[in-house]
Amino acid sequence: MANDSHARPDIIRIAHAIFYVTDLARSRDFYVNLLGLNVLHETDGALYLRGVEDREWTLKLELAPEAGVKHLAYRVRSDADLEALITLADTQDLPWRWESEVDRPRLLRLQDPFGTPVAFYAQAQTHPWLLQEYHQHRGPGLQRVDHVNVMSPDVAGTMRWYMDELGFRLSEFTEDDDANIWAAWIQRRGGVHDLALTNGAGPRLHHFAYWMPDAMSIIRACDILAGARRPELIERGPGRHGISNAFFVYIRDPDGHRIELYTSDYLTVDPDFQPIRWHLDDPRRQTLWGARTPRSWFEEGSLLEAFEGGWVRSQPARLQGIPVNVI
Amino acid sequence: MANDSHARPDIIRIAHAIFYVTDLARSRDFYVNLLGLNVLHETDGALYLRGVEDREWTLKLELAPEAGVKHLAYRVRSDADLEALITLADTQDLPWRWESEVDRPRLLRLQDPFGTPVAFYAQAQTHPWLLQEYHQHRGPGLQRVDHVNVMSPDVAGTMRWYMDELGFRLSEFTEDDDANIWAAWIQRRGGVHDLALTNGAGPRLHHFAYWMPDAMSIIRACDILAGARRPELIERGPGRHGISNAFFVYIRDPDGHRIELYTSDYLTVDPDFQPIRWHLDDPRRQTLWGARTPRSWFEEGSLLEAFEGGWVRSQPARLQGIPVNVI
Amino acid sequence: MANDSHARPDIIRIAHAIFYVTDLARSRDFYVNLLGLNVLHETDGALYLRGVEDREWTLKLELAPEAGVKHLAYRVRSDADLEALITLADTQDLPWRWESEVDRPRLLRLQDPFGTPVAFYAQAQTHPWLLQEYHQHRGPGLQRVDHVNVMSPDVAGTMRWYMDELGFRLSEFTEDDDANIWAAWIQRRGGVHDLALTNGAGPRLHHFAYWMPDAMSIIRACDILAGARRPELIERGPGRHGISNAFFVYIRDPDGHRIELYTSDYLTVDPDFQPIRWHLDDPRRQTLWGARTPRSWFEEGSLLEAFEGGWVRSQPARLQGIPVNVI
Amino acid sequence: MANDSHARPDIIRIAHAIFYVTDLARSRDFYVNLLGLNVLHETDGALYLRGVEDREWTLKLELAPEAGVKHLAYRVRSDADLEALITLADTQDLPWRWESEVDRPRLLRLQDPFGTPVAFYAQAQTHPWLLQEYHQHRGPGLQRVDHVNVMSPDVAGTMRWYMDELGFRLSEFTEDDDANIWAAWIQRRGGVHDLALTNGAGPRLHHFAYWMPDAMSIIRACDILAGARRPELIERGPGRHGISNAFFVYIRDPDGHRIELYTSDYLTVDPDFQPIRWHLDDPRRQTLWGARTPRSWFEEGSLLEAFEGGWVRSQPARLQGIPVNVI
Repeated sequence: MANDSHARPDIIRIAHAIFYVTDLARSRDFYVNLLGLNVLHETDGALYLRGVEDREWTLKLELAPEAGVKHLAYRVRSDADLEALITLADTQDLPWRWESEVDRPRLLRLQDPFGTPVAFYAQAQTHPWLLQEYHQHRGPGLQRVDHVNVMSPDVAGTMRWYMDELGFRLSEFTEDDDANIWAAWIQRRGGVHDLALTNGAGPRLHHFAYWMPDAMSIIRACDILAGARRPELIERGPGRHGISNAFFVYIRDPDGHRIELYTSDYLTVDPDFQPIRWHLDDPRRQTLWGARTPRSWFEEGSLLEAFEGGWVRSQPARLQGIPVNVI
Repeated sequence: MANDSHARPDIIRIAHAIFYVTDLARSRDFYVNLLGLNVLHETDGALYLRGVEDREWTLKLELAPEAGVKHLAYRVRSDADLEALITLADTQDLPWRWESEVDRPRLLRLQDPFGTPVAFYAQAQTHPWLLQEYHQHRGPGLQRVDHVNVMSPDVAGTMRWYMDELGFRLSEFTEDDDANIWAAWIQRRGGVHDLALTNGAGPRLHHFAYWMPDAMSIIRACDILAGARRPELIERGPGRHGISNAFFVYIRDPDGHRIELYTSDYLTVDPDFQPIRWHLDDPRRQTLWGARTPRSWFEEGSLLEAFEGGWVRSQPARLQGIPVNVI
Repeated sequence: MANDSHARPDIIRIAHAIFYVTDLARSRDFYVNLLGLNVLHETDGALYLRGVEDREWTLKLELAPEAGVKHLAYRVRSDADLEALITLADTQDLPWRWESEVDRPRLLRLQDPFGTPVAFYAQAQTHPWLLQEYHQHRGPGLQRVDHVNVMSPDVAGTMRWYMDELGFRLSEFTEDDDANIWAAWIQRRGGVHDLALTNGAGPRLHHFAYWMPDAMSIIRACDILAGARRPELIERGPGRHGISNAFFVYIRDPDGHRIELYTSDYLTVDPDFQPIRWHLDDPRRQTLWGARTPRSWFEEGSLLEAFEGGWVRSQPARLQGIPVNVI
Repeated sequence: MANDSHARPDIIRIAHAIFYVTDLARSRDFYVNLLGLNVLHETDGALYLRGVEDREWTLKLELAPEAGVKHLAYRVRSDADLEALITLADTQDLPWRWESEVDRPRLLRLQDPFGTPVAFYAQAQTHPWLLQEYHQHRGPGLQRVDHVNVMSPDVAGTMRWYMDELGFRLSEFTEDDDANIWAAWIQRRGGVHDLALTNGAGPRLHHFAYWMPDAMSIIRACDILAGARRPELIERGPGRHGISNAFFVYIRDPDGHRIELYTSDYLTVDPDFQPIRWHLDDPRRQTLWGARTPRSWFEEGSLLEAFEGGWVRSQPARLQGIPVNVI
């Protein structure tokens, strides 16, 4: 472990994403009118959204000339953990700076060693939740931020860094006969994952996921998209993952950002929890049942903003190939 | 059978109810904002509502100084069936007249021999349904009119008349050891019932019911009422009936009219279908499972408008007593 | 209409199918252990199965050297309707004979003008249902027979015959710009269909369908097949049809017979019900939302037994082509 | 805080309960045949049960002359935490001893200062879960142990001790105008509670709870009990709690032990999570919606085994009174 000499920051959970979108009204129609996310703040150039359990905004849509992802953010326990992150960044020569967002005045942004823009904060303005305001729920009722998935050209290395430096724990992983790791699900909060890493050109954002109250809510999301004559936004599913056991659907927003609606996984709090290993060739891994996965799901992702501006340049994946049973 | 000498009218199904309500804005909040019924027409003094499958309005709310029920209406196959009904009315000295409603210009209103105001129509203006406009569904998603329940002081006699004169068929009934019939479920359209008759002072309307897409929609209706701080409007349930096998909840509107949300019964189209007999003392009858039934459910009902105006005078039930397992 | 001179038989509903299967133990595992159909009778060479609402067996599996379908059967109102069918057969030179099955001693089998083996019966031995024996339900809980779908080389002609001679009514149909009918949903019992006809080489059985209590039961069926390491038996879905509005999944039995699990359609009892027309090119028609349909779903079907034994010879479809959005 | 001088034990989560039952076959019928819990081990005198996600047994039923509860057990992180617990026990003069159970050879049993028998273990033999063996799931599909509820004559004191000495965190609590705490929900694993404390004569076990995959599974549990002609075992619900937001039902086993089936609460991992305060008189607290609570639910509980054998003597509650809206 690389950080013997300093305290390891205490990461609580995945907290938010900021998406650049090119047409805010169109995105609002998708996220608010169809998916039923709740508007917490709104400005000329941005929407701050949340699920009904979220006490903070969990997705910011920011108007921009080009679609992409500004950063992915995690909550930490305290300001001391932000200091520990700065120490880590300085030690490893990772660029960092202070930024601020609505409700989140001290946001530490850094670039992880693989190029992904991540942010951390300890203090946030919270707001009364809407969980029991059932008469105000709209659409399928997205409940709370669940996880983020990053396509990575070096899953093993990225996984190692998040586990060693940030204390993530491994839930499940995909491996081939040569012990190459193709994908990893790592977590901080006792669920299946805060962060998933899947092999691919990147780093790019694969998807951002919300927890749903039950499988029927996911069926309702599909019905609503079909009612609105947008069934083509459903990219994959519904179905059940082998990994995580979740019932899921993947949809694409008007800019192509991928959202997963996700429910019914399991707990990983036990100290003797054994990460679940899936062989790369096991078809049950991605799809315990469900239609075949379209090629777009393997190949497309959202660009990530580089620290100095512009987009992080995508690197080809170290491991080449996608599963055979693809459409 | 009493009507050998003339054609029996061909009743298709229960079609609508007209409720007098005392505060239209308050009723609109309940039926539209909370239950999510869809407004098909609106005037200064009335709202015409429907479920997402209904191609016609199925519930009219009409502003009036006092709450009550104007009439319950059935569709018939053709104008000839309306003529047959007039013949029947004349033969039996039942008062009748032509009325009209929005979308239903020829509405034959008569008073059945027991005092209940019923109306019949063959022609209606229909409208595109909302069934597949899922993005427009609101609240728990009431689907279509299902049935009406009338509290009757003479269940056996009323049942006989509807079966003999109007061709209703018996699905289920409640009987005591002396072969007294306490309740009957009768139908025209191949489901469990268009009309239920339950023993009690009356005739009064016990409830008007909508079909729900599934049990979870009924749970959502309860969540929504609770979110709006109106859980006391849930009078009974959710639970499952023995009779009909339906999953149900009963709620009361702001004027006290009782609405049942109802789903998952069964078909009765077979010619050898045997009506299901329940003994009065069988606790599984009303409640296969669920909390005990409050006394209000047995005793309260909506007044029915008399043919000549005013309210039908309630007669005490011929059979006295309510089931023992009441709160 | 061809039958002016004689009474039209009164068909009640689709009633059963008899499948030839090549390994009864394997089929039993699929239908009983996984799908949870209930065994009503069992002999050395046959299983008689039913859903929890069915009061009769609705699917017979009969051991045979080759897989296929013996016949599809409908209930009629009375023995007089069987006589009317014989008159019809004689008039049209359709071969017919009396057969018998367990619980169904007088089964009139005939071959329709297009080659499909159909049977009719008026009297059946019924059995107490299992609908409220919830503690005995197994698997996803198939509820009752819903409909049958026949692939037909002449959909328009077949539809015409069932409507004119047997009184079926049209619910929905698919048409191209030249008014060619590619598919038709026709019914007798007031639902969306007892019989669907879809364009294709045939006649062959496309699928046999059971009604499910709700969409979650269909999700459970998928989970169960995946749990048993048989997810490949899920051929298409789950998803929602535009036609019928049903939530569905198609699965294949060990002999390749296709079963649809189906729920949440709508009523068609109104005399002014207007059949819903779908344009052949409308993608919402087959799949309001859901994954693309595999080619096998369009091309594969079960052989039908010819009246004189052997299999009905398949005729190529009059209309050529399958929808473009196929995998 | 009382334990400055020694390490605080790291409790992971509630782990199991051991119930004494008086007729093992009868209990087996209830827990295995109706509720569908899975038998992990079975001996002449005991059954070891688990939900489909549990990798260990979570409920042991032990044949005994009288019904009661042997102990409630928690997992701790490591053997060092067991040592810390012994230090705590010695410091506070709490009786303790080593016991062992199948798969749990080193079980530290102690009596908390209020008389409740609790046990702790760090090492356990785990077993492959059944989560994805959907074809083997039975009944409503209980998923995993969720929490335990103890009726306590001194909720405030008990809560304080578990928080101060064992590191529990407060999620929600009920308070009156005089700042008396009537009930508290405290947790270790980031959910709403591992342990609930409710005011009443005791200590006694109020209930032991399993997590359900969704609300429909709870409806199915009710259907199954009704199918088996045991609807009277449903004591309260289904309904939704204000506290925890869970959808729930309470049932009683053949010895009167109370089981809650529970689903859809929320996360409490955030460091700035503010415990939710409910006023004692707020009717939304216990029942966001649902039927009134029967008196038995407030008054009845299971006896707890005293450290030296026999039953812990119940003390009257310090706070007297039960909510007014009780049947």
